[in-house]
Amino acid sequence: MTGFSTDRSGAEELDAADPLARFRDRFVRADPPLIYLDGNSLGRLPQATAQRITDVVGREWGAQLIGSWAHWLDLPQRAGDLLGRQLLGAARGQVVVADSTTVNLYKLAWAALDDRPGRHVIVTDDDNFPTDRYVLEGVARQRGAELRLIRTDMDEGVSEQTVREAVGSDTALVSLSHVAYRSGALADMAALTAIGHDAGALVLWDLCHSAGSVPVELDSCGADLAVGCSYKYLNAGPGAPAFLYVRQDLQQRLRQPVQGWFGQRDQFAMGPGYDPVPGIGRFLTGSPNIIGTVAVEEGARLLGEAGIGALRAKGMLITDYLIALADAWLAPLGCVLASPREARRRGSHVCLRHPEAWRISQALIQAGVVGDYRTPGRLRLGPVPINTWFTDVWDALNTARVIIETKAYEQFPGDPARVT
Amino acid sequence: MTGFSTDRSGAEELDAADPLARFRDRFVRADPPLIYLDGNSLGRLPQATAQRITDVVGREWGAQLIGSWAHWLDLPQRAGDLLGRQLLGAARGQVVVADSTTVNLYKLAWAALDDRPGRHVIVTDDDNFPTDRYVLEGVARQRGAELRLIRTDMDEGVSEQTVREAVGSDTALVSLSHVAYRSGALADMAALTAIGHDAGALVLWDLCHSAGSVPVELDSCGADLAVGCSYKYLNAGPGAPAFLYVRQDLQQRLRQPVQGWFGQRDQFAMGPGYDPVPGIGRFLTGSPNIIGTVAVEEGARLLGEAGIGALRAKGMLITDYLIALADAWLAPLGCVLASPREARRRGSHVCLRHPEAWRISQALIQAGVVGDYRTPGRLRLGPVPINTWFTDVWDALNTARVIIETKAYEQFPGDPARVT
Repeated sequence: MTGFSTDRSGAEELDAADPLARFRDRFVRADPPLIYLDGNSLGRLPQATAQRITDVVGREWGAQLIGSWAHWLDLPQRAGDLLGRQLLGAARGQVVVADSTTVNLYKLAWAALDDRPGRHVIVTDDDNFPTDRYVLEGVARQRGAELRLIRTDMDEGVSEQTVREAVGSDTALVSLSHVAYRSGALADMAALTAIGHDAGALVLWDLCHSAGSVPVELDSCGADLAVGCSYKYLNAGPGAPAFLYVRQDLQQRLRQPVQGWFGQRDQFAMGPGYDPVPGIGRFLTGSPNIIGTVAVEEGARLLGEAGIGALRAKGMLITDYLIALADAWLAPLGCVLASPREARRRGSHVCLRHPEAWRISQALIQAGVVGDYRTPGRLRLGPVPINTWFTDVWDALNTARVIIETKAYEQFPGDPARVT
Repeated sequence: MTGFSTDRSGAEELDAADPLARFRDRFVRADPPLIYLDGNSLGRLPQATAQRITDVVGREWGAQLIGSWAHWLDLPQRAGDLLGRQLLGAARGQVVVADSTTVNLYKLAWAALDDRPGRHVIVTDDDNFPTDRYVLEGVARQRGAELRLIRTDMDEGVSEQTVREAVGSDTALVSLSHVAYRSGALADMAALTAIGHDAGALVLWDLCHSAGSVPVELDSCGADLAVGCSYKYLNAGPGAPAFLYVRQDLQQRLRQPVQGWFGQRDQFAMGPGYDPVPGIGRFLTGSPNIIGTVAVEEGARLLGEAGIGALRAKGMLITDYLIALADAWLAPLGCVLASPREARRRGSHVCLRHPEAWRISQALIQAGVVGDYRTPGRLRLGPVPINTWFTDVWDALNTARVIIETKAYEQFPGDPARVT
């Protein structure tokens, strides 16, 4: 224990001192009530978003119909600029909300290869999020390129040394996650971007688990490209559109492969050949999803109000607290920390390894404590800074302690695909 | 006039006899009231959809959180099956709701080229919807293929003769729109598909302007591939997800280029290499947009309740009526029909050509009559079968008559890009 009390009163005191605790009321409550440590998988619904969706559906679409396109047309850019300013350290004109993370990654990886003729290697890590690995595998095959996988410690994240060894004069693109989806390991964006650049490669960041949970400084890190989803820390709802970032000075050079009419100059002239707009709009494809995009806007606004500095401070403290309780209660029961121990090296979620993690996660859900199971053999717990209380963490870990101590998980079937 | 009265009482009688007239009450009303002939661009909001979105947002997302993924996971397939059964003539397991039309077209065109090695030509028509031409131009360039454009009469649509002349042993893919976005010309899907097949090509149909407005019989026409949007006749809302169709026996052979985790076998095992599921699911990419997809489901359900046969009968009658009024009132004022005159050769929208079409369309909007302007020099009027009344058409055409007769449109600025 590093200064934390294991009494519930300790959690109550932390909540009382938490400047973000009041933000919980800005979200719709789970019904039936849950201890929800999975906002890093599907973020909660902000009250303001529910109201905004009702207004956009009923008034803008239902009552005003096609006339609303006048202010919908540049919504992907407006929402992108807001995200960039509040959460991504990106000056305006570099971020748009569009498509899914998967599709955006495809578009940008393809564009990157075009921009580095004569280089035939894409570097990523072998523990990157599955869709990243699958998309890059596909792009590599389609382009006659090679996907070079860095061997990564799944609990500690990508090391600078392995990236340095993997890149070279053959490398077109380095694609990494800023916060690892399983362990929560936080990569040093500035250092790793510099390593890619030193080799002459473009560097693409997946921000799915970092946007809204840790400060992202795309511009000052010199990042080239980035993608990320909006349904985790940004609280924009299931399958809401993703975002992408292309650094200003690259935009004119890059062309993405999915040549859609929303990237077309003078779109409604409907001219004969594809002629992409000069700016970030050229990375759009088809008609933007309006309801999802306003939800991204509301999510970015709410996190901006909380302030990414405060969110990061809370995220470090509450995951430190979670680890302290796990050390005190669960380590003696066979749980092993499977995330970096230092707060500065983590995002806002933590993994605990246990041979019965699958059955424990099922028992927790039945007890009203919702985290995630992640292969192999890990409980993933995400106390998201804007709406998780310290008492939630106490209650969750205490419930886990009882479940493991009493072997209450044994009533649940084992995970057929479990690899411990 | 072919049997229609030009008196408003004639329209009232047609409404009284219209078995679909009552469906108007199933949609949210425009506020302020509009004569809305643009449901073929953005369909109205069904009351049931507004309620369903409120429920999915508030209860499924807000209250039940991550647990809702248990029934969201196969929603793209369920919504696709419903669309297929109600509106597309497609047996189950061949349609999914996903991404945008643009992205789906990209995926399927790419997959088609893979399936026809040694053939290097994509055939489409030079008047196909812009995003189709742009996407295919991009795919052709990326694959070292040629995009061969059929010269098309923009008022009459694609002729079988020109398609027959364009395809050959070099042709991998023929990509056409079922209903032309401008003129509304309805292509003969069975005949054109057979022409493509005779040449050994795959045939891909864009159903954006036909799904929900005319019967589509993908299976019985032997179509290979299809895409379409959901925000027009399907009434699923601005930028709601699109759909795609891949014929059953092709699914196993085709691989799409955007290798996302939602197409992966045993998705949550998060295994090392991309291994697509056997069925239609392999054409999914990233996380599906849930709110948009339930709106597609509601839209398909409502159109299914009306019945595509009744919708088609109404669509032919109401566009015949529109043309009859245009012949009587607007032809003498310089308006020329720019759509097929025979109902069986049209979808549910009609274009009228006039040198001042741009300014007339602006004057109509100011008078509360909303259609579309489409270059070059056309008013596009879409009396969508499920919620347009004959009196709407009478009021719209009568307003247009007054605007053109009195030259009331002259107070509006000209269209700088106008090409008459």
